[in-house]
Amino acid sequence: MTPKDYMQMALDEARKGWGLTGTNPVVGALIVEDGQVVSLGFHAHFGGPHAEIEALKNLGRKPSADAVMYVTLEPCCSTGKTGPCTQAIIESGVRKVVLGAIDPDPRHQGRGVALLNDAGVETEVGVLEGACEDLNLIFNFSAQEGRPLFAAKTATTLDGKVSTRSGSSQWITGEEARRDVMRWRRYFPAIAVGSGTALADNPSLTSRLEDSVTCGTRFIFDRRLRTLGQIDTLKVYNDAFKSKTILVCGDETDVPKALESKGIRAWKLPLQSDVLWKRFREKCREESIHGVYFEGGPCLLSELLSNQELNYLFAYRAPKFLADSDAPAFVGGQMVDQMSDAYSLEKVQHGTFSDDQLTRGFINYS
Amino acid sequence: MTPKDYMQMALDEARKGWGLTGTNPVVGALIVEDGQVVSLGFHAHFGGPHAEIEALKNLGRKPSADAVMYVTLEPCCSTGKTGPCTQAIIESGVRKVVLGAIDPDPRHQGRGVALLNDAGVETEVGVLEGACEDLNLIFNFSAQEGRPLFAAKTATTLDGKVSTRSGSSQWITGEEARRDVMRWRRYFPAIAVGSGTALADNPSLTSRLEDSVTCGTRFIFDRRLRTLGQIDTLKVYNDAFKSKTILVCGDETDVPKALESKGIRAWKLPLQSDVLWKRFREKCREESIHGVYFEGGPCLLSELLSNQELNYLFAYRAPKFLADSDAPAFVGGQMVDQMSDAYSLEKVQHGTFSDDQLTRGFINYS
Repeated sequence: MTPKDYMQMALDEARKGWGLTGTNPVVGALIVEDGQVVSLGFHAHFGGPHAEIEALKNLGRKPSADAVMYVTLEPCCSTGKTGPCTQAIIESGVRKVVLGAIDPDPRHQGRGVALLNDAGVETEVGVLEGACEDLNLIFNFSAQEGRPLFAAKTATTLDGKVSTRSGSSQWITGEEARRDVMRWRRYFPAIAVGSGTALADNPSLTSRLEDSVTCGTRFIFDRRLRTLGQIDTLKVYNDAFKSKTILVCGDETDVPKALESKGIRAWKLPLQSDVLWKRFREKCREESIHGVYFEGGPCLLSELLSNQELNYLFAYRAPKFLADSDAPAFVGGQMVDQMSDAYSLEKVQHGTFSDDQLTRGFINYS
Repeated sequence: MTPKDYMQMALDEARKGWGLTGTNPVVGALIVEDGQVVSLGFHAHFGGPHAEIEALKNLGRKPSADAVMYVTLEPCCSTGKTGPCTQAIIESGVRKVVLGAIDPDPRHQGRGVALLNDAGVETEVGVLEGACEDLNLIFNFSAQEGRPLFAAKTATTLDGKVSTRSGSSQWITGEEARRDVMRWRRYFPAIAVGSGTALADNPSLTSRLEDSVTCGTRFIFDRRLRTLGQIDTLKVYNDAFKSKTILVCGDETDVPKALESKGIRAWKLPLQSDVLWKRFREKCREESIHGVYFEGGPCLLSELLSNQELNYLFAYRAPKFLADSDAPAFVGGQMVDQMSDAYSLEKVQHGTFSDDQLTRGFINYS
């Protein structure tokens, strides 16, 4: 077993907290003594013990003199809902900590490592760093940028189409890719669609996986209240999770009582798109919603892109094509003259789901 | 080591003959005694000894009683340029043969296995079958269909664009993906572009890899002889491989002497596209060109697609997008109403080249 193997196990452990840690990062830790993994731990829910503490607790005894801790993220050095992990590690007697990624929060960045080193604990930083960073897309972005991450999901043909000329779109990708979407729905605290998608597909926007059905905040962007004509049939307004639905409409709109009586909130925001998105992002931040997963159609995505308000793209592709210029593309509205000026993705990750593929990454506007 | 591990080694061995076997398949073989690989062999050139014979010869002695031969393709049972491999295996004393793929040629299919079994040689068929089949895309198609394989390569953005609205296209994909294209150029006996690509990019269409530069037959589709205006500057008409270039033009075209004096041939074919492609394919078959790699632009590809004459697609994609409906897509000209009627790929294979991805497969017209 190499350090990478141990870190891979810590990553697998971390993923047990996928979608459960709220605004906290997903973290896994393990303790190795004499080459053997003797204890594992992960951060299981917001406010609960951190992964390092769990691993120490699960060991149930003092670590041996040669014990090494592997942890996917730099241990915290401040007291939040729980005490600082650095202190617990130092007190435990562990003399070496191997880290995946440094805490990206400018207030913590590297301080945990420094505290450990000051106390004589050896550290090694950056084992499987990319994968450890990738585990916390939302947490990292929000810590670094001080604002929520806006991500869009698209499922297209090889020629980038989201439907045929007549609007036929089900299904482009296969079951495995759609299951991956369910995993990302669970990861994001909120999901958003436009009124067009809400009316055309009547989606539930829940995350349906083998073990359970969960639901984050559901935003319906509907400036002209078009969806209210279907207020009694749309799932998002009527299912068991309806209190998680928020209608986003214009700030001069009269929201009907019917919505309120269902326990559904409305966010009234300015209609001008340059202001709308900034205000929406601000309001998400105020409500500690640090990531929104947009599953909207081309209109919503193009508007986000035009305003440079889309930070991340999940692009699923099926091995098929339409060869039809009248079929709508997943995003549009731009005029680009040079290939070097194309929108490019950064920190690109790939996935393969049976015959479908996923490319995802941060959108670079520079 | 499992049978799959041994077959994987046989596959790696087979790839040493990549692009060198002419109309013969790429094949690798190895002999295992008491769990140890004691000999390897591959088919190195058209007319040369087959992989099984090479492996037996490289052993330099009689195989032991427990020897097992692994071979990526069913051994041949007929006398061609060399004697039948089945006979050589039987005479060698090898008592068990593990096969990847069955010979797809309807005249041979399964006969090699039957002959081995009749002689008391045990066979196991289908280990890493998909990968073993995939190794011989051209050979398999041409053996089964009795006609050459027409494949197209595209390099696009995530929205399926091959250039910006102003024609800017270099580069979409990165170096690693472009190196993969070089490998496929080596695999295919011929490459084809339209006059537009020839004039715009002045490509050499050679395969440039670390060890060498090679060149297959180069077809320039130029019905109106547009490229002849650049006859002294285009690489395909002037480089060291110019005798490998064939101009494809209308059957009523007067081909200028200048071309002939450079030693460049012309194929004069009917201009109507439904007839042209059938005639072109026939002529390729007559000249034992069993695969053509089209690197043409959207016009050439769309025409091939419209005539259902494109069999295979290599779709490279870079993690970028233009979001510009005026940028040209890799293929067009169709009207598709239902998503279930999209052109789909079969026997899909994926590749990742740094941040770029490849999806490839056979186009299903049914």
